[in-house]
Parts: sequence; structure tokens; C-alpha cells
Amino acid sequence: MSEAETGTETKGETGTETEHGAESEADGDLRRVGANPDFWYPVALARRVRPMRVVAAVFADQRIALYRGRSGAVHALEDRCAHRQVPLSMGVVEGDTLRCCYHAWAYRGDGRISQIPYLSKGDGRPPRGVRGYPVREAYGLVFVFPGDPEKAEDTPLPELPAFSSTTYKTMTFSRTVRCHYSFMHENLLDMNHQFLHRGVVGKLHPQLLGYETSPRSVEARYLFTHAGGKRNPGAGLLAAEGIRGGDSADVMTIRTEYPYQTLDLVPENADHPAFRLWAVYVPVDAEQRTCHAYGLLMIEKPRVSAALQLAWPLIRRFTERVFAEDRKAVEAEQRAWEEQGEDRNHEVFPLILDVRKVLRTNGVPVRGRR
Amino acid sequence: MSEAETGTETKGETGTETEHGAESEADGDLRRVGANPDFWYPVALARRVRPMRVVAAVFADQRIALYRGRSGAVHALEDRCAHRQVPLSMGVVEGDTLRCCYHAWAYRGDGRISQIPYLSKGDGRPPRGVRGYPVREAYGLVFVFPGDPEKAEDTPLPELPAFSSTTYKTMTFSRTVRCHYSFMHENLLDMNHQFLHRGVVGKLHPQLLGYETSPRSVEARYLFTHAGGKRNPGAGLLAAEGIRGGDSADVMTIRTEYPYQTLDLVPENADHPAFRLWAVYVPVDAEQRTCHAYGLLMIEKPRVSAALQLAWPLIRRFTERVFAEDRKAVEAEQRAWEEQGEDRNHEVFPLILDVRKVLRTNGVPVRGRR
Amino acid sequence: MSEAETGTETKGETGTETEHGAESEADGDLRRVGANPDFWYPVALARRVRPMRVVAAVFADQRIALYRGRSGAVHALEDRCAHRQVPLSMGVVEGDTLRCCYHAWAYRGDGRISQIPYLSKGDGRPPRGVRGYPVREAYGLVFVFPGDPEKAEDTPLPELPAFSSTTYKTMTFSRTVRCHYSFMHENLLDMNHQFLHRGVVGKLHPQLLGYETSPRSVEARYLFTHAGGKRNPGAGLLAAEGIRGGDSADVMTIRTEYPYQTLDLVPENADHPAFRLWAVYVPVDAEQRTCHAYGLLMIEKPRVSAALQLAWPLIRRFTERVFAEDRKAVEAEQRAWEEQGEDRNHEVFPLILDVRKVLRTNGVPVRGRR
Repeated sequence: MSEAETGTETKGETGTETEHGAESEADGDLRRVGANPDFWYPVALARRVRPMRVVAAVFADQRIALYRGRSGAVHALEDRCAHRQVPLSMGVVEGDTLRCCYHAWAYRGDGRISQIPYLSKGDGRPPRGVRGYPVREAYGLVFVFPGDPEKAEDTPLPELPAFSSTTYKTMTFSRTVRCHYSFMHENLLDMNHQFLHRGVVGKLHPQLLGYETSPRSVEARYLFTHAGGKRNPGAGLLAAEGIRGGDSADVMTIRTEYPYQTLDLVPENADHPAFRLWAVYVPVDAEQRTCHAYGLLMIEKPRVSAALQLAWPLIRRFTERVFAEDRKAVEAEQRAWEEQGEDRNHEVFPLILDVRKVLRTNGVPVRGRR
Repeated sequence: MSEAETGTETKGETGTETEHGAESEADGDLRRVGANPDFWYPVALARRVRPMRVVAAVFADQRIALYRGRSGAVHALEDRCAHRQVPLSMGVVEGDTLRCCYHAWAYRGDGRISQIPYLSKGDGRPPRGVRGYPVREAYGLVFVFPGDPEKAEDTPLPELPAFSSTTYKTMTFSRTVRCHYSFMHENLLDMNHQFLHRGVVGKLHPQLLGYETSPRSVEARYLFTHAGGKRNPGAGLLAAEGIRGGDSADVMTIRTEYPYQTLDLVPENADHPAFRLWAVYVPVDAEQRTCHAYGLLMIEKPRVSAALQLAWPLIRRFTERVFAEDRKAVEAEQRAWEEQGEDRNHEVFPLILDVRKVLRTNGVPVRGRR
Repeated sequence: MSEAETGTETKGETGTETEHGAESEADGDLRRVGANPDFWYPVALARRVRPMRVVAAVFADQRIALYRGRSGAVHALEDRCAHRQVPLSMGVVEGDTLRCCYHAWAYRGDGRISQIPYLSKGDGRPPRGVRGYPVREAYGLVFVFPGDPEKAEDTPLPELPAFSSTTYKTMTFSRTVRCHYSFMHENLLDMNHQFLHRGVVGKLHPQLLGYETSPRSVEARYLFTHAGGKRNPGAGLLAAEGIRGGDSADVMTIRTEYPYQTLDLVPENADHPAFRLWAVYVPVDAEQRTCHAYGLLMIEKPRVSAALQLAWPLIRRFTERVFAEDRKAVEAEQRAWEEQGEDRNHEVFPLILDVRKVLRTNGVPVRGRR
């Protein structure tokens, strides 16, 4: 979707954003908006779905059994035997079928029943099967399409050219976070939260250069200058020629393109990113008060590529520490929401008001249980 | 109750069970049907109620204090002091009375207050006491009658002639299972679930010979043949001359006679059971989503009775493993029910449809809390 | 408030208390009555609020951030950043302001926002701040006034002359108890519960000498005689010349003066207390089903004051054991209330009926969540 098609409007820092000053009360509570299921969502790391094995996955309380059959392809079935609702993820892979552990009903990869071992003539008419999900393997992740299966074909997977580029190396993240996915989008887009990471990254001064909003996206550009204080070696390594001393000035571009989020860091004087992050926050429970964050951090290889190898554990430790601090904040936000019973945020940063609108208008009503 | 009196109908495997094809939606959710309290239910192992001691027991959230006084008899009282509702099971046995731990109110075995140590003339009128339950000790268990006490006298305890027979030795089981008791009845009656135990018992092929249904009971007969695979030594020992090699063919009779369940295994060419199981699943919580299973496994002594002594630990380990697998399945069923908020089972096995009807029509509405 | 002003009536043990015989059903459930917030309540030990640090406290689910700034004074703010509701207790003290950990908004001690580091001209209008609580430090405790702040000035802190007296030494208690605060008042006032402590204090016989009730208070006087049995050395030490052998007779005066409670023990032949306890039970959660007990036990120093030093650990262990038994009882009462869904106590002791009325008429409706 090009920016022209979606009506993107570019705003400078001095633009009039009075229309963002308040969200209408009729907008409803953002934390009760469900993630739109008509997109591809990762629900497992591909390597965790080993050959001839089945694992349990989930999208917003839709339990999904992922299994890799003899053909090597991964199948995704509703994780409930049609018979007695026992999870099929407790079952056994036989060839390209999945057999329930309890009474041994067998299912094909599309969810149709292939065998009920003991069925007799006089017995009741069995059900036809369980729901099968469109499934694709990419970027080391297993994606499913939890929404209307007819839309799956025409809905593209996210495009991550850097993933397969020889000039980038990818670090994969997979973490459960006890908060609504919207807190994650707001966290990353509002770089004024660098105070939270002062112990890890030192004093960073983010300056908003401008941002753009479309019905499906918000993109913000920040100029980052380092204002002294502790420096983390991991941070330095991460942005090899990027975030440096007090004299550096790097440009960070963060974009929510529903339902995904990306972050690119282009060092001063460079013409391409030193690293690129792609992330998505997959709801876990029915109320979507917990999400599972999948992240792909694609880091440019230095000229001596062995250096990256050596730096890898340091970079991972650094990113884990930053993520742990973010998690602490967003989980505190979720707890506050649960205690207050509603969203009482008082937002003043215009682009965050914009991303809230994007998440609200592209989302669906949360189902909840019963 | 004879079969004639209760209108038992015998059905062969080829009988027309079309009437079982679907349960009417008006039937209500079986998992919301409470166990009928007008029966004798075990609530403790007799040896756990030691002389001059009190223990806490429960039937469907009715908390019960069991104590054994000086006379040796066990008494069963509502487990709430009439004064401030503190559990009497925290109290002290004195002679044949039970004294609350808090302000020392004392109760007789029938629940009437025998003393309030500090009551003065001007004080308020005290309550008369707490509920006393009819209680009986049998088969190493303490049974109470949680329903209408006037029906207790005419309601027989289960009859277990093998328990006191010199030719059988009894192994006792007592386990909490986090599921509605109905899942337990269905589990044992539907022997097509042998796939669940494939790792422990090898490949068993159960063939339904026929079954009988009455308003209060369902009884199924299966022919068991061993089709190869791993054999567990405990299984072999359990059915001494019973379940053997691929050439064996034993007859297993399983019966739900509300509210109890029995299983008899008669080896090929034998005229009496190699072992008999009696079991009952006592609801624990108000919603009856957890039950406590009591089982008595009566095993025929071999000619050299010392052999059974030696085999005893192996048999126990084997039955524990089988039970652990069953528990995993039925607890998964309960979790599915709780997540789905209703019973979505699609049953095709006619006798299971029959036992569902027996459990529903003999049960009572579940109370729940408040 | 003098007794005359509040209409105190003195009752002997033989007085007519028929009016106490029953509580009207219209009275409502005492366990749903909230603690009146228009009093000073301790919410932390003063030494736990270290210089330049912030700690989380709570009164009935009102989360409070306590911090001690450069001036040494303690400030109490609503524990929610006005921006995104993240707890300010996760923040950082800077001078006499408190800065939120997330986007670095800064607050003054009265709750007004002093700085939002990144706010631009075009941004939304920020909120004015968060609620600030009146706060006072006394007796080693931090007191806040959770109710109408205009009433704080005229509401006195409790007066504890023994605390600063050179003849008494104070032992401080701070414990969370999972029960409604009313159970704590009833526990201490009804000394007929000595049976609960029979293992620790031996056989104590409490005899009610009389009691007085006013709209805000109930005061009971008991004569304590020791009737043999185990004696705890800590108990002996606690009442140095107090509770002694079977020939001793000490007078214990227990008083609920809303919302506080005191206990004085005057040994036989003495003219002043051997020890004085001051206690308050601060609700923690919205439903007030958990409270935090703060206690100050002021013990008279013996002539050789080093003896008290030596006895201190024994006295602490003794009081901890007694408190553990009380806790077990009152938490059992709370669980019973939760299981029964209502207060089914059947009280017969007139002064307990009186204190129930005091707690009910001085309390406020419990808010609960949402």
C-alpha cells in the first residue's frame, strides 16, 4: 500500500495537532480492542516444531496445534479434538496425520478426520473434523492466519529483505509480556521513554524530527544524540558505526504498520541502516491482556564479519536488558489498567494519539470468554 | 435393585441406537449436574482419622469435620463453629466431644453444643449447634451421607463381598482429580481409550461384546486381546493368569451403578474375576469441577500368596502410571470445558451417551457458591 | 472526646444487655464495611522510607508512593503517574521532587507536575498532577490521611505518652493479615479466646469485670488469673512483675477507640501498666479482605534495664507465637466468610456486639473495584 493510496499526511514538529488534543470518549477503551485476525501472525519459532512432533500454540485464546508431518510441512489445527475437546497437541504425529492421544481419532493436515478406529455401523454420526488454519513458514517463524481463511491468499507476509541479505545477520526474540499489545506499540514509538533505560544506555537525547500518519500506519523519525553518562558496550557494538560519543547524531525511524512494527537506525553520514528491527505482539488470552512478542533484529555485518560473531553475546545481553526494562514498564501499565478498570492515560504526545487511533480503527472487538 | 425392576434393556453391538444419536439441547450441560447427595460417599481413609483426632473432609464444598472420640466411633460435623464459623477441624477432641480451637465451644457427636465455657446469664441466646452427618466406617473408608439424613438408614452402603473374602487382597487408592466426576465415569466405561495407555500396557484391542442400560446403570462387556507391543510386568502380575500374550482373551465388565463404578476382569477360561475394582468420584468444590477418587482394587491371591506380596509394589506402580495418564486426559477435558464455557463433546459411542443420561437424570442441580 | 460527651454507659457483668441480643438484619454485613478514611493511618515503618528513596504503600487499594526528599520530609503521592498510570514508586527522587521512571515526568511533594521534559508547543495540554496526601511521621511510623484532606489538620494523631517515656521501651510490629480489620478488633476484645493460646500461655482464666460502650469506643476490663499448665518464659518476662503464678491476678484493659485499639496490663498491686499495646489494622485491598496490622508494644523497663535487653528476643518470640495463633484464627474466619458469602457469626458476648456496632456506625461503605 503506497502512502498516496492511504492518504498519508506529513507533519512537522510545529504543525497544528489540535485535533489530537483529546480522544473522544465514544472511541471506547483501546485496551479492549482486539488484534485484527486477518493478518499473518507468528505463533512459534520454526525450529521448535521439530519433525514428527506437535506443539501447542495460541492466538487470542484460539488454541492451535502445530505439527510437522513426514512431508516436512507444518500444519496448524484447532487444538481440540472434535470428540472430547482434548488438546490435539497432546497427540501423536503419524505420517502426515495427527492422532488424538485419548481415543485415537486421526486428523489430516486440513483438519478433516481421517479415521476413528472403533466406529461401528450403529454408532452416532461423527463430526467432520476441526478447523485448519492457513500456515506459512518464513524468517524462522511459523505464521498462521487466524482470521477469515479466504483472505489468507491475498494477504502478504511481511517483507523483510534484510533477513535474507548477506550483509545482515538476524537475532531472534520470543518473549511473553503480560500486557495488551497496544502498550508495546506505544512504548517503541514514544522515544521520550529513554529515561527508562538511563542505566543501560546512558543519557540519550531523542529529538522528534517529524512523523507521518496514515489510516494504517504511523512513522516517526528521531534524531538521537548522546548526552554523556554511562555507555553500554553492547549498545556501541550494536550500532557499530552508529550510536557513538557525544558528537554522534543518528536517525531512528520507528513505524507501526498495522499490525507490525519496525525500527531502523541510520548512523550519521550513513545511507543505510546499521540495524533494523521487525516486531509483532501476538495476543495470547481471550481478553488480550497478555501478548507474545516476536522480534527479528537484523544487524549489519561489519567489514570483518568475525567481529560480529564475537560481539553477538554482548549485543544479546544489551537488548535483553533494554527489553526487560520496557517489559517492567508496560506490565506496570497493564496492572494499572486492570486495577482501574479502564484506560486513564492522559497522552500529550501527538503521534502516540495517532497510533492509538490506528490500533483502534484497524482492530476488532475483543471477544473475551463467553 | 434387580434389572427387571429398573427396566434394564440389553443391546447387542448391532442394535439400533439411533435414539442415542444426539442429546437434546434441553438436557442441560452434564458438567453442571451435581452428584446426588442421597448416597453414601467416602470422604476419608479410615486410618487417617486417628483416635482422639479431628480431620477436615469435604463433599461438594460442604466442609465436614471428622473426629474419632474416646468410644472409637467416628463423628461427622459441619466444619464450622456455630459461633464464628472457624473450622471445627482446627479443634480439639475431648472424650466424645469436639471443642473449637478459638473460644472453646464444645460439641457432641450429633452436632449439639454441650458447653460454652464463659456464657453468663445476661449474654445472648446461643445457637443449638451445627449439622451432624450420618457416618459409617467400612472397607477402610469413612462414609458420610451428605443428603437428607432421613434417607440414610434405608440407603445401603455399597456391597463389596470380595473386600472381606480371604481369596482377595485390596489395594486402596485416594487421589484428587481436577475434573467433574462425570469425566471419570466416561473414561472408564469407554475402553476405546486404550491408545492413551499404549506406552504402559502395549497394544490392547478392546472389542465391545454388548452393554446394558437401566435408569440407574450402564454395564459394558469388552473382550480384550493383546495385539503386541510393550508389555508392563505390573499389568501381567495384576492379571496373574489374566491378560497374557497375544493369544489371551479376557473379558472386562465395567459398570456404572449410580453413583459408584466397578470393573471386573475375568481371564479366559476362568469363572471368576482375577481382579475387581470399585470406585467413586466424590465432588470437592461447590461447582464440582474437582473430585476426589476413591478406589478399592481387590486382587485375587495366587496359590502361592507370597508372590502377591512381592508383586504388590509393581502392581501399585503400574496402576499409578495408568491412573496418571487417565488423569492427564480428564483434566485436559475439564480445562477445555472451562475455556469453552460449555460441554462441546461430540460423542459417537452409544453406551457413553447412555451413561451421560444416567448421570444427568440421577444427579441434582449444582449449587455453586452463593 | 470525654466519656460524658460521647454518652458512655458503664455496664456491670450483671447488667441487662437484652438490647444486644440480636443485630438487626438491616444492619448490613460488617465485613463489607470499609474503614473510615478520615483518620490518620500508618502505611509504612518510617525507617523503611530511606533518604532520597521512594516506596510503595497502600490504603484500601489506594496506592500511595512515599518518598523522602532532600529536606528529609516524607511526601505521599497517589502512586500513578498522571501520564500513563505507571507507579511513581518505580520512580526516582531528585531533590524534593519525584520523577516517573518511564517518560520522566516530575512531581512536587504536593502532587503537582513540575516538569515534562519533552513537551512542545503543539502538544496536548498535560494534566495538573496527581493527588497528594497529608502525611506525618510519628512513633517510627509514616501516617497518611487517606480521606478528606481538609479534615486532616483537625484530626489528631493517636497520643502515646508511653512511647516517648523513659520508663518504657517499644517493640514494633508490622504484619499483613488476610482478614477484614473487624476480625482483629473482635479477636483482641474477646479474651475468652485464651483457649487458642493454651499451648503458649498455659491455662489463663479471664473474668470480665465490666465494660463501657460509647458511640466511638468499647472498653473491657478483665481479671486474669493463671490456672496452671505450661508457662511461657516470654510471657513471664513480658509482664515482669505481672502475670505470675497461680496466685497472680492482673487486670487487662482492652479498648477499641475507633479506629485504633489499645491493651493495658496492670499487675496486681501495681498502679500503672506493665505493658501497653497500641494497634491499628489498615485495609490493604479494595474489598478490605486483607489488612496490615501495625502494633507498638510499650514495655515497662525493670529496675535493672539491661535485663529487658536480654529478655527482648524472648519477648518477641513469645508475642510472635501468640500473634501467629491469632492470625490463624482470624484468617480462618475470613475464609469462612468468603466461602459462605456473608457473615453468619452468631455472637453471644455483649461487648462484641457493641464493638461490631461501633465498627459499623463509624465505617463507610466498602468501595470494591469498579
